[in-house]
Amino acid sequence: MDAVGFNARLGEVAEATERHLTALMADAGPAPGRLAEAMRYAVLGGGKRLRPFLVVESAKLFDVPPETALRVGAALECIHCYSLVHDDLPAMDNDELRRGRPTVWKAYDDWTAILSGDGLLTLAFEALTAPGLNISDAQRVALIAGLAKASGWQGMVGGQVVDLMSDKLGDPPEPDFAHVQQLQSMKTGALILYAAEAGAILGEATADERLALTTYGTAIGFAFQIADDLLDKEGDAARMGKAARKDSAAGKATLVDLLGVDEARAALNEALSAAHDALAPFGAGAATLKAAADFIAKRDH
Amino acid sequence: MDAVGFNARLGEVAEATERHLTALMADAGPAPGRLAEAMRYAVLGGGKRLRPFLVVESAKLFDVPPETALRVGAALECIHCYSLVHDDLPAMDNDELRRGRPTVWKAYDDWTAILSGDGLLTLAFEALTAPGLNISDAQRVALIAGLAKASGWQGMVGGQVVDLMSDKLGDPPEPDFAHVQQLQSMKTGALILYAAEAGAILGEATADERLALTTYGTAIGFAFQIADDLLDKEGDAARMGKAARKDSAAGKATLVDLLGVDEARAALNEALSAAHDALAPFGAGAATLKAAADFIAKRDH
Repeated sequence: MDAVGFNARLGEVAEATERHLTALMADAGPAPGRLAEAMRYAVLGGGKRLRPFLVVESAKLFDVPPETALRVGAALECIHCYSLVHDDLPAMDNDELRRGRPTVWKAYDDWTAILSGDGLLTLAFEALTAPGLNISDAQRVALIAGLAKASGWQGMVGGQVVDLMSDKLGDPPEPDFAHVQQLQSMKTGALILYAAEAGAILGEATADERLALTTYGTAIGFAFQIADDLLDKEGDAARMGKAARKDSAAGKATLVDLLGVDEARAALNEALSAAHDALAPFGAGAATLKAAADFIAKRDH
Repeated sequence: MDAVGFNARLGEVAEATERHLTALMADAGPAPGRLAEAMRYAVLGGGKRLRPFLVVESAKLFDVPPETALRVGAALECIHCYSLVHDDLPAMDNDELRRGRPTVWKAYDDWTAILSGDGLLTLAFEALTAPGLNISDAQRVALIAGLAKASGWQGMVGGQVVDLMSDKLGDPPEPDFAHVQQLQSMKTGALILYAAEAGAILGEATADERLALTTYGTAIGFAFQIADDLLDKEGDAARMGKAARKDSAAGKATLVDLLGVDEARAALNEALSAAHDALAPFGAGAATLKAAADFIAKRDH
């Protein structure tokens, strides 16, 4: 699959994800209008929807209907978006722009941003229990367990705390590659790995197939992080739409700082190969997932 | 059951809840120490643990082992405590004291409070999927669905937004009893109702039994709110350990403002009778739940 074909497919799934998210938040019931509006503002209207894409494409290996995978992808996207809403707060990263629009706290205020993030986090778990999602209870429990683990104190939230300990307290993690890799993987890698794992859960994969997908998910999560660090080191602020070199400027020990640019590029290529190799058991059916790995390694924003 | 007996039983369950919460957070895995510490600070060391008590006592009607109900109660308490951590933030209620100790943002800082709240919220759902919880997958899904609904945008989070719209934006809800009751019930009533409902789910109650418990839960949730409003109106700051009359001072339309004190007391007694009546099908076994309703209606802090 070439880049043009991949981008078209990515765009298709992003549109379908947008539809599912819109439907998920269509009926606010007794929720106050301000909250429903802020939650929709945080989630709708853009983003590559990479995580839902990985759920859909991983599930497709097992002929899971895309509608089922998209519902799970929408739940995962709620988690991703809540984390951005909270991370952007003045008390955290203090970012005023996201995807070229004012961040939620800037468009509303801090308390609305905190509570709309809480609402989205909770909605993600509610979505995985919705009767319209046509999977077994065992699958629901596995999906919920995995999502909570990937996004909680030992996953994404933990990673964000490590980042802020460095930014706010000048308390960076030990400058040791394995240590930094583990901590950094919590912040972004865990949700990416979960996306691939969710496909395996939906597809009732064998243990070998599941291992293949989690190996792939770990490799692309690592590739995502290294690519991000390289962008941060070399990136051009205009292209990224946010201030480049922010992490390095903050004195954070990134993987690229620890390895140097050349070795980081080599590690990125190694992760990319590992991702491709892991997909071997799925043959030609995994072409889109391979292209997704290439996309992650080579993205420039 | 008299007040002395009830208080002893409440204390027993509070201690058992503390043990379960301690165990739930004993192994932080790769979570950063600062986060694990703040989460434990937020959850451990006090509180009446009323919600876990209601889970345990409702489940007991069906001979559910207390260890099982306590695990669910611990998850519910994580949600309750996360909501306090976020509500106390300077951007929200700006409270510096909670149970006589500095609030989490005061003891740490705002970002640690936001993220430890996020961690606790997520941990609640993870706890309901833990292998050690000996219930069926169908029960897990029902517990997770109910908890997400009660605590999310159409429940607790929505209620908090309504409160803050009044405090921060001077935009109180329409001064209409039914409207204020629905909105206020979202903030506190939903989790209390859920506690009783969780007992029914754990006990695989019949539809009639479940209805009896949800009727009870709705009545005590309403009683809790009215009692709170009465305390707020008449309360003595020293006894409550926080500033009394805060809600009225903020221009919020409370139920007591809408009804007047005498009619509010009558409504409280009516709710208390309704709670007792709902428990009739359970006979003498429900004595503790009846005492819990009395405790809620008559508490002075």
